[in-house]
This record gives sequence, C-alpha cells and structure tokens, in this order.
Amino acid sequence: VPIEAIEAPVTPDLASGGKGRAGRRLAVMRFLNEIADDHPGAISLASGRPADAFFEIDAWLEAIPRFQAHVAEALGTDAAAAGRRLAQYGRTGGMINGLVAGQLLNDEGLDCDPGRIVITAGCQEAIALCIQALCARPGDVVLARNPTYIGATGVADLLGVEIVPLEPHADGDAALALEATAARLAAQGKTARAFYVTPEFDNPTGTVMPLAEREALLAACRALRVVILEDNPYGMFRFDGEAEPHLAAMDRDGVVVYLGTYSKTLCPAVRVGCAAVPKRLFGDEAASAALVAELVERKSYSTVNTSQLNQALVGGVLLREGGTLRRIVEAPRLYYRRNRDLLLERLDTAFAGLESAVTWNRPRGGFFLSLSLPFPFGSADVVRCAAEYGFVVMPMSFFALDDSEQHRIRIAFSGVGPAELTTAIDSFGQYVRDRLRGN
Amino acid sequence: VPIEAIEAPVTPDLASGGKGRAGRRLAVMRFLNEIADDHPGAISLASGRPADAFFEIDAWLEAIPRFQAHVAEALGTDAAAAGRRLAQYGRTGGMINGLVAGQLLNDEGLDCDPGRIVITAGCQEAIALCIQALCARPGDVVLARNPTYIGATGVADLLGVEIVPLEPHADGDAALALEATAARLAAQGKTARAFYVTPEFDNPTGTVMPLAEREALLAACRALRVVILEDNPYGMFRFDGEAEPHLAAMDRDGVVVYLGTYSKTLCPAVRVGCAAVPKRLFGDEAASAALVAELVERKSYSTVNTSQLNQALVGGVLLREGGTLRRIVEAPRLYYRRNRDLLLERLDTAFAGLESAVTWNRPRGGFFLSLSLPFPFGSADVVRCAAEYGFVVMPMSFFALDDSEQHRIRIAFSGVGPAELTTAIDSFGQYVRDRLRGN
Repeated sequence: VPIEAIEAPVTPDLASGGKGRAGRRLAVMRFLNEIADDHPGAISLASGRPADAFFEIDAWLEAIPRFQAHVAEALGTDAAAAGRRLAQYGRTGGMINGLVAGQLLNDEGLDCDPGRIVITAGCQEAIALCIQALCARPGDVVLARNPTYIGATGVADLLGVEIVPLEPHADGDAALALEATAARLAAQGKTARAFYVTPEFDNPTGTVMPLAEREALLAACRALRVVILEDNPYGMFRFDGEAEPHLAAMDRDGVVVYLGTYSKTLCPAVRVGCAAVPKRLFGDEAASAALVAELVERKSYSTVNTSQLNQALVGGVLLREGGTLRRIVEAPRLYYRRNRDLLLERLDTAFAGLESAVTWNRPRGGFFLSLSLPFPFGSADVVRCAAEYGFVVMPMSFFALDDSEQHRIRIAFSGVGPAELTTAIDSFGQYVRDRLRGN
Repeated sequence: VPIEAIEAPVTPDLASGGKGRAGRRLAVMRFLNEIADDHPGAISLASGRPADAFFEIDAWLEAIPRFQAHVAEALGTDAAAAGRRLAQYGRTGGMINGLVAGQLLNDEGLDCDPGRIVITAGCQEAIALCIQALCARPGDVVLARNPTYIGATGVADLLGVEIVPLEPHADGDAALALEATAARLAAQGKTARAFYVTPEFDNPTGTVMPLAEREALLAACRALRVVILEDNPYGMFRFDGEAEPHLAAMDRDGVVVYLGTYSKTLCPAVRVGCAAVPKRLFGDEAASAALVAELVERKSYSTVNTSQLNQALVGGVLLREGGTLRRIVEAPRLYYRRNRDLLLERLDTAFAGLESAVTWNRPRGGFFLSLSLPFPFGSADVVRCAAEYGFVVMPMSFFALDDSEQHRIRIAFSGVGPAELTTAIDSFGQYVRDRLRGN
C-alpha cells in the first residue's frame, strides 16, 4: 500500500508563506520539490537534513520501555501501569523536563529550571509558540539577521507578525544595528519584541557569532526589553576551535529564551524540541511564569501535548546515556567534519584561479557553508544546474528578508556522501566557469 | 528524576483563551487544575479521557518494526534502510495517508482520496490548521453549535478568529438557524467560512445529530459556501441504535472536511489525527488542491511533519488489523457502554422523585452525558462539590459561546471505574437534594 509519502521529495527546512515575500517563500518550497521531481538524479546540496546513516532507530525504540521502567519505579507501579500512563494524555508543558534540563546543563552549559521548560513537537513549534506569545499585539515585531532561517520568517508571515531584518550598520556592529532598527520601528509606532538568532553555525550562513557581539547584543536587548530567541540546532556539531558560551549561558538578566531540538542529535522523527524560558524574564519572576503559562496555553490548542511516546524515547536515551548526547553525536560530528573538509578541498580545486571572484566561509561546525558568486544566482539558475550539471544548491536570496543576497548560495554538506559531494562540487565549478565564459 | 509531569493533573480537553470570554476559558483550565490539586481525592467526572485499561502499548510499539518491514518491502531495501527513512524528516502531509483512507472507508464509510488527506499531530492540529486556512481574512467567522468543544473555540480565540454560535431558531431547525446566523454576519460585513460540528456523540452534550438535520445542514452550507468541519472522535463508540451516515459520507458537493483522530481508538500518546478534504471543494477540484496545499504549508511551519515514528505505529497497527480498528475498539466500547448503563441507573436512583426537576439525555455512544439542574451550577459549586461531596463535574457554561447553559453540566463517564462512578453519582444526588433543601 501507501508508501507514496516516503518516496516523495522533501525539503524540511524550507516552506511556504502567504502573500508578497511570504508568497515567494512558499514558491520556494514548491519550486524545490518540483526540481527534485523533474531531476531525480541531481545531487542535492539543498536540504539540511542530518545524515541518516547514524540513526540508531532500533536502539532508540528500546529506550521507550527503559523510560517506562523508570516511570514505574518512580511511581511505585508495575511496567504495564506505567505504560498506560505514558499512552494517556499528559501534561501540556511536557514530561521529561528534568531530563532535558540535565542534558542542557551537561551538553550546552545551560542552567535551566525544568519548570520553565516547555517540551514541544519539534523546535518549529517552539519558534511558532514564542512568536505568537511575544508578538500578540498589533505592531509587535520580530527582528532577525538577514538572511535567516526560513522556519522563523515563514511562521511570522503566516501569523501576520512582521519580521524585520537588522538594518546594516556602518561599523558592522550588530548591537548598534539592532538599536537603530528598534528605534526606527518605535518611530513607526511599532515595537520590537523578539530577536530570532542562531549564534552557532547559523542556518543558512554557517557562521558563528563572536563573543563580543554576543555581549553587546545581550546588553542591547536587555535595555530595549527585546527577548532573544536563541535557536541552537547545530551547537553540538563543532569541528574545531573553542566554543563560545551560548547567549542563554551568558544571560544574567533574563533576556534569552533558548530553543532546543533533538532532530539533529537524535533524529527528526522524534519531533521533540523545547523552549527554555529564563527564571526571571528581565528580572521579573512573575513575568517569566506568565510567559511559560502563555506558551503552554497556546500549545494546548496547537498539539495538546507532545507525544509521550516520543518524549519517552528521548527520555530513555538520556537515561541510558547518563544525561548527555556527546557519545551519540560523536560519529555524525566526525562525518560532517570530513564532509566539511572535503567540501573545502573540492572548492579550492574547483575554483582554482578564481579566488577573487568566488569566495566562501570556512564553517567551524554545523551543516552549512555560504559562497559568493560573481554573478546573480536565482531560481532559473537552480533549474539549469539541476538539468545540465546534475546538482542542486540553494540561492541565499531564498532566505533573505529583502532583495539582497542575489549573489550568494547556501551549500548543505550534512546529507550527502563524499562521492556525491565531490561530483556535485566539481560540476558546480564547471558550471561557474562555463557561465563566466558567457555560456 | 523528573516524573513531575506524569503526576501533574491534566485536563486535556480543556484549555485557555486570551481575553474576555476566551480569558474565562483560560481560567477554566487553571481552575480545574487547581481543583484537582486542592482535592486530589475527589472523583473526576470532568475529563473526557479514554480508559487506559485498554491501551495495548507494548503490542502497538511492535507495530513500528512491522511497518518498517512493510516499507522495506515496498522500497526493496532492508529493514535498517527503511528504519533510517522513517527516522528522517518526511512529507509534511503525511506518510500513511493510504492506510488512513482505507480505515476511514472500512470503519466510517468514507470515500477519501489519500492525496486529499493531511496527517496531523493529533486532531487538535487539524482543527487549528483548518480554521487558520479557511478564516485567513479579516471578518471571516467560524460557526458552531452552542455549547461546543473548547478545543475549537479556544483555538479560534487564540487565532483572533471570531467563533459565533448558531442563533436559536423558533423551529429548532439547525439549517434555518445557520442561514439566519450567516445572514446576520453578512449584514455586519462578516463572512461565515466554516461550521465546526461533532454530529456523533457530541462533546460536551453527548447527542447525535438526526439524519434530517444532517441533510438540511449540508444543503444550507453548500448554498452558503460554508465548509463543514466534521469532527468525529467518538463515532466508533456507539452503544446502541443504528449509525447515521457521516456528513462527509452524505456529501456530494464537496462541503465537508472530515477530522479524524487515533487518540480515542488507539491512545492519546500517538498524537496522530487527520483532515480529509473533499475531492472537489464546492465542486472545484483546484480549490480542493489549494486547500490541501494551504493546510500543508501551514503545518510545515507548525510542526514540520507528524512524527513518522507515531505514523509508523498507527500504520503498523492498521496493517496488523487489516485496515479496521473494530476489533481494537470493541472492549473499550463495551466498557463505555457498561459505564453509560451504570450511570443512567445511578442517576435514576439518585434523582428518584426529582424527575421533573433534574433531567438528562441517554447517550447512545461516546464519552459524555448532559444533565439539567433546577438551579445554576458554576465554579463555586464545583469547588463545593469537590470539597464536601468528593466529586468533580463540568458546568456546561464552560463550553458555552454566550452566557447560556448556567443550569447544565457535562458528565464524562469514559475515564472512571464503576465503583467510582457509583460513588460520585450517589454523592451528586445527595448534593442536589441538600441544595434543594436550601443547604
């Protein structure tokens, strides 16, 4: 019967919009699905999926009875009674909040109160709930760097919440840019309420936010009472260099809501994420409790509660692993690092002699690299690359909040094997050279 | 560690709002949680949970590898490869659409196109997505009977979509009431877009919509181009009498979006529901495809896709059961029926001599009974019943879209054992007699 779905092309980190720019984002999803349909042989460097070779799904399913036994022991019941409890409706805010807080402490250096954590049906739900809760009034605005993750921009569009890029600032100073943007909005009668950002190995750019910028942004957001939504899907996949502390770890003033996910560290099918609200939002404990209550209430009307089977899987894995995912992420981390190394090596080869025309960053972790071309690269070029050169990359303009980013692309190196990566980049080099020759 | 959640009181079929009446609905959830906290010994007839004695969670978890093997066979891969596929991101609209369509045909008599089904993270997400998609413009309104399920009213409130009760009509004719309500809205510059209804064993009233009313409503909604959102969580739990065809089964004009769930037939923790869009919405195939696309796009920003592990569980159970849940629901159906019989018997005893003052319906299925009292019954009375008489029932006013329903209550008989039910109803009778004596 019906495997129609499993075979369908998917671009999970991309989706739709409604009208205007949002409509264009919608068009992006359809467009990429069509490309995959029309050119099934093209190697995709478009989708930021985790490498599924490392999914230990059978072992992870065994974590469910493990968690069930843990519940039985904690409640003083037998396993069957614990299983019935797990299978029932549950607390809207989540069931594994303490285990998640432990993992955030062990792996991310975060001191979160389990009572301030809301477990969500994937991190996307956490983003949606936070934007809804923080931007409930007309004129409330979300700030974001430009370009930014389309899951954040898309949900804002659909909710009718304006999402505004930080204005470029002469000094390249993000805090000053944020202040200037907030001031301009205030002059229009609008209020910047939240700043969505991925400091670690950003999607789509692959960059890391420097420590000084973190400090300055925290101070600016505290002063402006703008809540930082710190998204961190890729932080555990660092390849080299020292980790900067997360914004939430540096936060002493209750500025940062931390957004977590198990989609990359375990697998996307667990659909478990979280929002961790600070203990005192801008110093106010009651405001913090009110935000948690608001998130929980909205979640109760969105998905009632996160599947307790999925929570049991995550909880059971955390019990088995002693509260840290470091062992589990080690093999995929090395795999992504080898892919990053290979990608950089092939880019060097593919663009030898074009060093001033084609430039790219050297990601120190994560799934993505950004690359600048000496010509604009848009939808029609994606089609041509797929049809004539056998690869797909994402125009960075798909992630832009304005009409910028016409010359950049995003390369996802997480979901392809070394041979495919080599072939695709070599073809990409050929395409660029052909195009520079006027073909 | 952290079983904080599992022990917490939950009222899954109730939740919050925002302001005004919505704020009161929010207060309802908090209020009921507080009651449960303050009076943990009180027997709850408030929550419409399925009876967990019938959850076969171990057997259902075994359905995941069964579905995995099915996928492997369909794709011509080994089980490990199929497992990796299941654990990955997936199609936003769902993976088990064909199996769900088969079950809807076998068990509900519905002829659904798998390509028009969107699999959701529980039915609550389906309700939310449909209201968002159908009521996207200012002035778009959802109609509902009064009282109605708080999951529908609550999500409308949170989305800022007005939800309007059908105006009472002199003849008690629902179709005329709907037409009159739509006309009044139109005169205000508003547009009725959707009509949310549970024809089978309604939550909160426990009633069944008569066949003639179904026909009249279908005709009225077709003429007015109002989409019927037919919610059917309880249809498989019929105790006696002949089933009427579902609105979606009678629908020849593409008026009905059918909403399904596996929370009651299997268990809430699977968090799998669906919306089945007609093949031709008001006769228009393109409009139907556009609505599906809109639901999928909105879902991609809400939860990306429904957990493929949970879909695999449901899919595996459907494979094992030959595409029908009749065998699985038989034991709980008989249990609910015995509870219904016992409830009616104890009500007869408890209110002997008060037949004209206290009246109730005889539910022919489902989880709920509604009862009319000769005095108003609100929050303060709930507290008194919990504290002094040891039981909790729900004032029907909690489900009302206006200030009506002050004298009715909802009794949920699904989640308690016979001894508790007997004790609670006997205490309820004592409470009513005490109160009629002026105490």
